[in-house]
Amino acid sequence: MKFLTDEKLTIVGAAGMIGSNMAQTALMMKLTPNICLYDPFAPALEGVAEEMFHCGFDDVNITYTSDIKEAFSGAAYIVSSGGAARKAGMTREDLLKGNAEIAAQFGKDIRQYCPDVKHVVVVFNPADITGLITLLYSGLKPTQVSTLAALDSTRLRSELCKYLKLPTSKIENCRTYGGHGEQMAVFASTTKIEGEPLTQWIESGKIPGADWVDIKLRVVQGGKNIIDLRGRSSFQSPSYLSIEMIAAAMGGAPFLWPAGVYVSDGKFNHIMMAMETVINKEGVHYKMPEGTEQEATDLEKSYEHLCKLRDEVIEMGVIPATDKWNTLNPHIK
Amino acid sequence: MKFLTDEKLTIVGAAGMIGSNMAQTALMMKLTPNICLYDPFAPALEGVAEEMFHCGFDDVNITYTSDIKEAFSGAAYIVSSGGAARKAGMTREDLLKGNAEIAAQFGKDIRQYCPDVKHVVVVFNPADITGLITLLYSGLKPTQVSTLAALDSTRLRSELCKYLKLPTSKIENCRTYGGHGEQMAVFASTTKIEGEPLTQWIESGKIPGADWVDIKLRVVQGGKNIIDLRGRSSFQSPSYLSIEMIAAAMGGAPFLWPAGVYVSDGKFNHIMMAMETVINKEGVHYKMPEGTEQEATDLEKSYEHLCKLRDEVIEMGVIPATDKWNTLNPHIK
Repeated sequence: MKFLTDEKLTIVGAAGMIGSNMAQTALMMKLTPNICLYDPFAPALEGVAEEMFHCGFDDVNITYTSDIKEAFSGAAYIVSSGGAARKAGMTREDLLKGNAEIAAQFGKDIRQYCPDVKHVVVVFNPADITGLITLLYSGLKPTQVSTLAALDSTRLRSELCKYLKLPTSKIENCRTYGGHGEQMAVFASTTKIEGEPLTQWIESGKIPGADWVDIKLRVVQGGKNIIDLRGRSSFQSPSYLSIEMIAAAMGGAPFLWPAGVYVSDGKFNHIMMAMETVINKEGVHYKMPEGTEQEATDLEKSYEHLCKLRDEVIEMGVIPATDKWNTLNPHIK
Repeated sequence: MKFLTDEKLTIVGAAGMIGSNMAQTALMMKLTPNICLYDPFAPALEGVAEEMFHCGFDDVNITYTSDIKEAFSGAAYIVSSGGAARKAGMTREDLLKGNAEIAAQFGKDIRQYCPDVKHVVVVFNPADITGLITLLYSGLKPTQVSTLAALDSTRLRSELCKYLKLPTSKIENCRTYGGHGEQMAVFASTTKIEGEPLTQWIESGKIPGADWVDIKLRVVQGGKNIIDLRGRSSFQSPSYLSIEMIAAAMGGAPFLWPAGVYVSDGKFNHIMMAMETVINKEGVHYKMPEGTEQEATDLEKSYEHLCKLRDEVIEMGVIPATDKWNTLNPHIK
């Protein structure tokens, strides 16, 4: 089995639980033999590199460094989980301030050390915002930065499978768009269960309204639930999905879930949010989700919530007002 | 891409770091769509199962249970990391007592609930001893139980790569046999570096004697080093390698490293130890390692050390004296 590419993939935050899992996942998927692990926490980073060496992967060149210049020079692909992790009791929004600053520096580092990078996947929360900030400061094109947004959709499928006791193959195209968690927009009309739209299952009462509310709540609380059960933030699923995203950007298997992407189309402006996307060698491209009137309204609400978060970051001074974005990154209109 | 088999694989200790990584690794490798996660710690186990659901793997049937009967019924393959983890400051031997009891129960549970299991890989430390105890109580044939023993060999390759600044492809066939860690027997004569035996590199002084002592020390302390660096026991490399082992037992890619196997051939008797092995659908088979006189002596010492550990377990009353083993498991001569 050959590698997808031989270009350099840099994993940011590789000393952490998500980053170290991304390293193993990328090596197992044979994305590229050239993997660079970066983390400011040098001892734990070395520990992760040692683990990868001890796996005995053949024909790979695994390097690790706490020097950002070395990590980013020549990188064609970057996946970053290099933010602070969500702890028990924290909302994603609590993380906003610290991670916004980290994202700004991340973008600046890309611009300085690897302006020719092809694609960047941003995983650290709130990913819609950190991805947006990364895009602004990196100077990359909007098609070159995507954010992990699939977990709400995979959680929706999982909750429906559990509730209906059906295998995943019977439940197609689960989709949530917009923001994450509390503010996501569930597009039930896109989901087909045994060929029939989920909206019909709900309207006909085959899934009673109260149960559907409950299912949505469990989706929203999917991350919190893992913290409660396992005593740690989810790390395996975000790692796996984000590596699937970068694999698609390398020309590998299509990524089958929504991704966060920069949107500024008149209806939704100056925002990064989960949309219906295709990720391939040309980057991330989106189309506007199609749904019911209610779903469209939910998406607008979700967008407005993201705008508030974005505006908080503008007020903090981490990013300039939207009318100055073009000066910061000429690819942003 | 198809699955290697559709038979049931049970992962024991799935709530832990090794077990949860094994689950993800097995799913990514597409070993089988039927994976059962078992752990007595129900909440964390559910958390791991949720993580796997949220990865969005298609066409898989992931179940989880804290009921051993449900976990083992119908299992064709089992990988167990279901022991206590090594903590900082502990030697593998400190774990002996607790894990010996766990292994005895594990073997009894196999005999009771899945006597038709095809292959069992034992990962928890000290794996040579826990594997041996599992074999005795399970009633399985010696070819049906193997133990993780590859890490010393992969660590040797890694240390040589780092020391010589060579890629893995230039360093072939790194081999340690017998016990683990302090008591392993390094077979330098089997290793070829750029085509030349490692023994010649040492004898000619290309690797000075003191440096070789240092390399071996780093191999022995490879696990401890990860605890020191990362603040936790290694989990990614043991998971990955043990799943590679069970994949080979399912008829997948050959496993390229030594494995622990039951040996009782006149020279070495009533023992489980790392040998040169082949793992395939017929189980694990070994041949006696060939090396220099010194290496043979080292292997004997390693064997003797394992015999002492085994005899400690006999004295504890966890397993009977060797002359009674045939009564416990008629496949043991």
